[in-house]
Amino acid sequence: MFVIVVYDTLAERNPQVLKTCRRYLHWVQRSVFQGELSTAQHRNFTTAIRKVIDPTYDSVLIYRIQTPTLVETETIGQNLGNTSPVL
Amino acid sequence: MFVIVVYDTLAERNPQVLKTCRRYLHWVQRSVFQGELSTAQHRNFTTAIRKVIDPTYDSVLIYRIQTPTLVETETIGQNLGNTSPVL
Repeated sequence: MFVIVVYDTLAERNPQVLKTCRRYLHWVQRSVFQGELSTAQHRNFTTAIRKVIDPTYDSVLIYRIQTPTLVETETIGQNLGNTSPVL
Repeated sequence: MFVIVVYDTLAERNPQVLKTCRRYLHWVQRSVFQGELSTAQHRNFTTAIRKVIDPTYDSVLIYRIQTPTLVETETIGQNLGNTSPVL
């Protein structure tokens, strides 16, 4: 599945969230990661995220699209990371 | 089409970007909007965004998915906005 993750976490927890996202996905913009994950990887990722965030304050939003070829991306302005859904 | 927009713009331009996004989409998280747009609305939205950002500094990333029912969302922690792809 193709996954887009956007997070809004307390600044002091950002480094751990960033590190966890980097382990599974690639960075595309500030607080945004994307990538292709298997069901097992997705499960491991969400388990890892739950360990580093405070669910009473932080928010991590995950979009899952089963068919990555259906996702088109466009960037207006600076292209910070690689946003191609198919790598 | 179902659209997810994430932006990283200079703080002083954020209010205009926010206002433009709100006109076409709904807010789901800090710097993240989503919604269903027609081709014409999408064109108007990107035209409006280009007018308020500085493309040499800001970044606005747009994901387009033609079939919104293929998008699943999950939130870990706080659910800030309405993330249902089908409203």
